[in-house]
Amino acid sequence: MAIIIFQPSGRRGEVEAGITILEASCQVGADIEALCGGRRICGKCKVKIEEGRYEKYGIVSSMEHVSEWQEEEGGFITPLEKKEGFRLGCCSVIQGDLLIFVPEESRAGKQVITKGARDIPIEHDPAVKHYYLELDPPTLQDPTGDFERLCEELEEKQNLKDLSCDFFALRQLSKCLRRGDWQITASIWMDREVIRLQPGKVDHHYGVAVDVGTTTVAGYLCDLTTMKVLGTSSLMNPQCKYGEDVMSRITYHMMNSEGLKRMSDDIIEALNVIIENLVQQTWPEKGKAKSERNATVEMQVLEKDAGLLRLREEDIEDMAICGNTVMHHILLQLNPEYLGIAPFPPVLHRSLDIKAREIGLKINPSAYVHILPIEAGFVGADNVAVLICEEPYKGEQVQLIVDIGTNGELVLGNKDRLISTSCATGPALEGAQLSSGIRATWGAIERVKISYETQEVDYKVIGREAWKSFSKPEEMRAKGICGSGVLDLLAELYSSGVIDKSGRFRRDQKSNRFRISPDTGEAEFVVAWADETSINKDITVTQRDIRQVQLAKAALYAGCKLILKRMGIKTPDMIKVAGAFGMHIDRTKALIIGLLPDCDPERITFVGNAAGDGARIALLNRGKRLEANWCSRHVEYVELTLEPDFQDEFIRAMQIPHMTDAFPHLEGIVPGEILNQK
Amino acid sequence: MAIIIFQPSGRRGEVEAGITILEASCQVGADIEALCGGRRICGKCKVKIEEGRYEKYGIVSSMEHVSEWQEEEGGFITPLEKKEGFRLGCCSVIQGDLLIFVPEESRAGKQVITKGARDIPIEHDPAVKHYYLELDPPTLQDPTGDFERLCEELEEKQNLKDLSCDFFALRQLSKCLRRGDWQITASIWMDREVIRLQPGKVDHHYGVAVDVGTTTVAGYLCDLTTMKVLGTSSLMNPQCKYGEDVMSRITYHMMNSEGLKRMSDDIIEALNVIIENLVQQTWPEKGKAKSERNATVEMQVLEKDAGLLRLREEDIEDMAICGNTVMHHILLQLNPEYLGIAPFPPVLHRSLDIKAREIGLKINPSAYVHILPIEAGFVGADNVAVLICEEPYKGEQVQLIVDIGTNGELVLGNKDRLISTSCATGPALEGAQLSSGIRATWGAIERVKISYETQEVDYKVIGREAWKSFSKPEEMRAKGICGSGVLDLLAELYSSGVIDKSGRFRRDQKSNRFRISPDTGEAEFVVAWADETSINKDITVTQRDIRQVQLAKAALYAGCKLILKRMGIKTPDMIKVAGAFGMHIDRTKALIIGLLPDCDPERITFVGNAAGDGARIALLNRGKRLEANWCSRHVEYVELTLEPDFQDEFIRAMQIPHMTDAFPHLEGIVPGEILNQK
Repeated sequence: MAIIIFQPSGRRGEVEAGITILEASCQVGADIEALCGGRRICGKCKVKIEEGRYEKYGIVSSMEHVSEWQEEEGGFITPLEKKEGFRLGCCSVIQGDLLIFVPEESRAGKQVITKGARDIPIEHDPAVKHYYLELDPPTLQDPTGDFERLCEELEEKQNLKDLSCDFFALRQLSKCLRRGDWQITASIWMDREVIRLQPGKVDHHYGVAVDVGTTTVAGYLCDLTTMKVLGTSSLMNPQCKYGEDVMSRITYHMMNSEGLKRMSDDIIEALNVIIENLVQQTWPEKGKAKSERNATVEMQVLEKDAGLLRLREEDIEDMAICGNTVMHHILLQLNPEYLGIAPFPPVLHRSLDIKAREIGLKINPSAYVHILPIEAGFVGADNVAVLICEEPYKGEQVQLIVDIGTNGELVLGNKDRLISTSCATGPALEGAQLSSGIRATWGAIERVKISYETQEVDYKVIGREAWKSFSKPEEMRAKGICGSGVLDLLAELYSSGVIDKSGRFRRDQKSNRFRISPDTGEAEFVVAWADETSINKDITVTQRDIRQVQLAKAALYAGCKLILKRMGIKTPDMIKVAGAFGMHIDRTKALIIGLLPDCDPERITFVGNAAGDGARIALLNRGKRLEANWCSRHVEYVELTLEPDFQDEFIRAMQIPHMTDAFPHLEGIVPGEILNQK
Repeated sequence: MAIIIFQPSGRRGEVEAGITILEASCQVGADIEALCGGRRICGKCKVKIEEGRYEKYGIVSSMEHVSEWQEEEGGFITPLEKKEGFRLGCCSVIQGDLLIFVPEESRAGKQVITKGARDIPIEHDPAVKHYYLELDPPTLQDPTGDFERLCEELEEKQNLKDLSCDFFALRQLSKCLRRGDWQITASIWMDREVIRLQPGKVDHHYGVAVDVGTTTVAGYLCDLTTMKVLGTSSLMNPQCKYGEDVMSRITYHMMNSEGLKRMSDDIIEALNVIIENLVQQTWPEKGKAKSERNATVEMQVLEKDAGLLRLREEDIEDMAICGNTVMHHILLQLNPEYLGIAPFPPVLHRSLDIKAREIGLKINPSAYVHILPIEAGFVGADNVAVLICEEPYKGEQVQLIVDIGTNGELVLGNKDRLISTSCATGPALEGAQLSSGIRATWGAIERVKISYETQEVDYKVIGREAWKSFSKPEEMRAKGICGSGVLDLLAELYSSGVIDKSGRFRRDQKSNRFRISPDTGEAEFVVAWADETSINKDITVTQRDIRQVQLAKAALYAGCKLILKRMGIKTPDMIKVAGAFGMHIDRTKALIIGLLPDCDPERITFVGNAAGDGARIALLNRGKRLEANWCSRHVEYVELTLEPDFQDEFIRAMQIPHMTDAFPHLEGIVPGEILNQK
């Protein structure tokens, strides 16, 4: 055993010698960024060994308490840094007590999460309904059993037949009936099973809808009677510590025999925190204390009246969950291994109804959790949720729905036909895997302008209203570039003439911001100088970074192009951009760099967290659950890599701005002019 | 805390001071008889305080370590016994370390259990069936998910539609398919849910049927493919330590907040022991060792070939359980409280299907346990099981089915009508609540003959072939009288002229066996002298004992009489006597004392443990499960106490032999002559 202390967080704990510093950070809760999941390829987990200490002999050289330098570390750590004690957390095996400093850029930032609930018209038909009944007590002439007595009344008054009763609820029945003097409220799931019994008359009942994202988990507390959203709560997916993207999670499962269970336990625990938060929000006095303790959690009480509710976990009688296929499989501990290998078959497509107690979700133990169905290995229940929310299959107009996340999910179609596909955009569009990329957290650069004349940079960071041009350098405290900033940056680099159509830096650079990195020898452009940052070094974009973003946008664009071709059309009637990421991007800039296919910018709308909305719809309307199952098997899934034109389209889509016959108004425009058009 | 040692068993343990000796005996597993469940009314839990010891000061008077003498104890303990240190276990609270001697008559004897499996023709249609499938692996052109792939094949080849999949089984699916190279065997419950997946082709599958009796629990291991019984295993119901009859169990629940859970845990544990035993029986080498360790468990391997099976618990894919209403409720932790109060409504009637994992039964966790339906508060699932076994509702002949246990359950009817009732016979017919009554265990007197001339007694005990007249006194080691012995005794006491028609001892006794007890002042008849016993005192039958048996037989007889009257007939076409108890009674003697209604003895048959057989039928044929549910609600339950004639009939039925118009051939017969007719 070894005692490990992480600075500046002060998180500490005793861990087993022989594990890496990255693993130790997970164990003691000092989350270090690990985009690649510990595969030694992202270099994000850089830490500084401060000192190692023998319990018996006092402080000695730290180097005896950590394993030997690994070749891979040289790719991310300069010789000078090495001398100072820098190591990669994933390469350094603990051999004794250690004090470790985690530089700010290596810290897994607390993300700014914006997954609110939209107002969407939903027909009231929840899977769980309440029935209030007044029964005749048994007599010697009619000693019928309690449950049959209840059923007779439900059949007579409500025409509900062949009801069963949850085993746990059944245990409460006899007491409930007598405590309520033979007046009782029964919660019935799908007109099929009694899942809860309460003495007397109970008017409201409640449910929770959740969207489990690879990065963010968002939950909504709903009144199943009024359909109102009573509260929202979001958290980072705690699985992020095993790797940023779905493939890292699959890898983690395959490399660790207990990995699947560990990741599942983590997400279940996160869901329970969300449930607890949502319930706490109905307790005004406690809710406040809670929100002060957990600054990361949105604590909006959307209805002030909700303060009078004072719900308990057992009052949550239904739950609907969506998530991408990998999140779905991990949550349920279904083997995700084959999702990572062609032909990527999921374990199952259809929706599941599982007792909350069976998967450890702390709502009413007799309640069912409805897990939405999935389309394919890379188009999951989150996409199905988007579909039942946007309902492209009900109209004449051809919609293109683009959900940009770590994976790009596309659906195209109308009432006649639906086609979906998935593009391996990678995490570049979200800011990950770039040299200065970070999540959408405090200090992340989210808007960029570059002057065509001077190539001077102006920018805005999350958490500060004022742009740099209106601030002192030290006020900016920039930390890196996030997804929306990356898109802005690419468009601005091009518009200002820093890069050319192919994405290469132009040779004739006027600005001192362009330079060849002394460390890497690579061309780079300084977005923010060291004195404007909280990490004390220049925030730059490199030629390699630009290439990454181009690859990502090309994958998305080529995907759109190919399914449009399949459908036999050139442009969709409308484009809907879903996902939190979409909320922050600039439509025109997205068209400029060729992220989205050619379309009148007016016909592009942002539908926000449509997946979460879809989950809420499934919670409140059981017909929509059937519709979801129909959707999931009705959509034609297109495997892009099987399309003969894919390579050609992909390579063509690397260009900025993208050239097509359908996009003539951007053809030949001088970069500076485009900005002026806005 | 106090250290308690029980002799002669040697069971010991540390217990909390403040609990009774009876409670301590439960905790350390030194089972003391407690027929009344600790209510201080049976006097069975008599123990002798041997010594008390302070840890620090050595041996001191035991009386400091046990609470004061209670008035109720005087009813069962003589002043001499009191002086010797005798106490009632239920009245004595532990205050310090104690060494306690448990006299043999106070020990909860290991019962001789005879619940075998009969050969009954059953149509093969188990709820769980196996399907072997060969699937096409997924391709990029057809990346359908694993479960949908399985379902498509099942629909195409077996016409099984809308299948769901158990959550636990689903977790195995992807590995199973690949391990079996896309050949797989699916176990499907009720053509509805996949509950198990095994790679490759598996031919046999297995189930267990169980009859949970108030006293005895019996299980049968069946091959669901061949329908053969592979093994049987029985145990005493461990709840016996809380009281002998169902009312004591209900009382225990009402007096102890954790009582219901404790009793439920006990029976679940017993069922798991039975399951383990049944599984072990298929492992010949281990099975033998096991049977040597547990001498109480029948270890018959009915099929020698079964030795090759080597089953594991997870190979048990279905289970059917029956039991009386109280056993049913306790097993499921349904509140049994209202079963003890008029109008005695059960929590529910219909059958239940519960996942094995939900109630902690260690068979395949995804398997369902089918709990048979119940008729009424006092006519339970065991009676329903008897019905689907004997099928009175299918024929013209009117059957009277009598199940004699602690409670007498009666069903009368044919295809036109079924009537059931329950008679509070009490446990007297099973030998309990009599001064010398014990269970059917080693040393129990089970057959009695009394000479009409000399009134000398001859008898036979369980565990010894030779009657007393062919043995030395010390070879008998008699311990008490069990149920079948009681019936014999009553008939013989009457036939030999010891008692008269009203059950009173005749005044003109010739035998020295008749005496007035010096302790109680009550008239009694010595069945076995002290030197023939293992308890070193005379085994007697008292006037009060005779009255108890008369009350019991009168309740049963009056019940039969009243339902016959309801049906509008005088005699049934046949009488079937069910239950282990019935196996040992003498038909003629039963008629003599008026236990069964008037009927040609040739038309009386013994159907053994028909409840267990019925459970087995429900295991092997799913149609019979529906039939059971139909039965349970189709039978007219008659509450005897509501019948206006009940009191009259009951009082008339007290007489021996019973006089009715339909029973003229016994009218006026001199007792001695009846015996000679045999």
